[in-house]
Amino acid sequence: MITCDTEIRVRYGETDKMGFLYHARYLDYYDVARSETFRRLGTTNLALENDGFRLPVIEARVNYGQPARYDDLLTVRCIVREMPGVRMRFDYEVYREHGERINTGHTVLAFMSAATSKACRPPQWFLDILKVCF
Amino acid sequence: MITCDTEIRVRYGETDKMGFLYHARYLDYYDVARSETFRRLGTTNLALENDGFRLPVIEARVNYGQPARYDDLLTVRCIVREMPGVRMRFDYEVYREHGERINTGHTVLAFMSAATSKACRPPQWFLDILKVCF
Amino acid sequence: MITCDTEIRVRYGETDKMGFLYHARYLDYYDVARSETFRRLGTTNLALENDGFRLPVIEARVNYGQPARYDDLLTVRCIVREMPGVRMRFDYEVYREHGERINTGHTVLAFMSAATSKACRPPQWFLDILKVCF
Amino acid sequence: MITCDTEIRVRYGETDKMGFLYHARYLDYYDVARSETFRRLGTTNLALENDGFRLPVIEARVNYGQPARYDDLLTVRCIVREMPGVRMRFDYEVYREHGERINTGHTVLAFMSAATSKACRPPQWFLDILKVCF
Repeated sequence: MITCDTEIRVRYGETDKMGFLYHARYLDYYDVARSETFRRLGTTNLALENDGFRLPVIEARVNYGQPARYDDLLTVRCIVREMPGVRMRFDYEVYREHGERINTGHTVLAFMSAATSKACRPPQWFLDILKVCF
Repeated sequence: MITCDTEIRVRYGETDKMGFLYHARYLDYYDVARSETFRRLGTTNLALENDGFRLPVIEARVNYGQPARYDDLLTVRCIVREMPGVRMRFDYEVYREHGERINTGHTVLAFMSAATSKACRPPQWFLDILKVCF
Repeated sequence: MITCDTEIRVRYGETDKMGFLYHARYLDYYDVARSETFRRLGTTNLALENDGFRLPVIEARVNYGQPARYDDLLTVRCIVREMPGVRMRFDYEVYREHGERINTGHTVLAFMSAATSKACRPPQWFLDILKVCF
Repeated sequence: MITCDTEIRVRYGETDKMGFLYHARYLDYYDVARSETFRRLGTTNLALENDGFRLPVIEARVNYGQPARYDDLLTVRCIVREMPGVRMRFDYEVYREHGERINTGHTVLAFMSAATSKACRPPQWFLDILKVCF
């Protein structure tokens, strides 16, 4: 299992007129957490893209509990529970500064060949990086 | 059942480096479609807010099929299949200009009293508006 | 001179905790107005991109007067006062539904060759389209 | 003079189809840098809002040099060159990781009373905080 925590501070422009972090921005936060998870593993999205892969999101789910507010320092935990095949699933848990969990969700990404736009398996070097975590 | 189609053209700033409409922006589009659905019914989000209600999104789901691109003129169909109680569910279907369905999803909103921040039933005038559609 | 009016309705996710259209989103609106201006002239950004050109924004200026609010139906007037050379300037005026001007600004874009990433003059076909307006 | 550097990493959803950080997002980054500048001084936007003040942006200017790309770790330098009156000006300089300056700009904010929606001078406690920097 892979677990990676990323701190994200809520920006003014991400709040809405209710005074809360706008609900669609959680998917942006999940994406940031995913990037940081890759970096923590010693790779990046860019390395995959440069190797000819694309990773579009094909499914997203968000469960909203308590709201977040401007300037809150959130922790977004990104969890990978199983080795990817053609698809890779990421689970997310969002915490307020004092540990309260306010939001959960997941996204599923597909590995695609940039050349053919077809689904494919991830490259071996990427699987090798992940394997040590399982 | 309530069905309302809203046209939304993909903005340059909503695309990402893959050249596609960024996946998180679909939730923004769903929200626009919801606003237009309310307007088509002869009311608005603002009317509910001015009457002391808030409608936070408590659950969101997006299923991505084909990508959308800059300048695409999408149709976002918003569907309400049942009368709301404390919660109100909206389903969405996104179509390209020539009718291809590229994306589906749903959101669940909760009626809350702005005064108490507690879940509550929608106001009678709002239910009366909806009732004629079912 | 070219003048093109585009209606844009303020989205919930574009408001901030002050209850106003977030100030950075005006640049997004200017971009939408620019796209519509091109379309009104019978061309698109895409036609220029497909012909090997890029048009990055190299300068932007926004003067904020009165705020806009959720669900306001704004009119963004885009004005081109002179034929482009290597650069093309667009002025903007934003109006509320009843005609009050609440915001002005401008952006300057540069024509660049996608192949060389160097500044260049716009293609002749584009200049021919504009010429009839001056 | 006040100078405060804030690191911001370019998010995937902030890029556009040219592969660059979308030009409007620099204003979002300037805002983040402003928030961090306040924090470094020992206060926050929220402290001003809770004391009955609003600080809308009334003028913004961005000069784009080189583009930024996904995953770039930018440094946004925020500079306050003079004590605020009814207005407060912030200058910005954006640097790439190896020190190249790619973007400059400024914003002017106005102090407003939340109660009267009228321009006003900043509170004395805020001026006292700033005074030690000049």
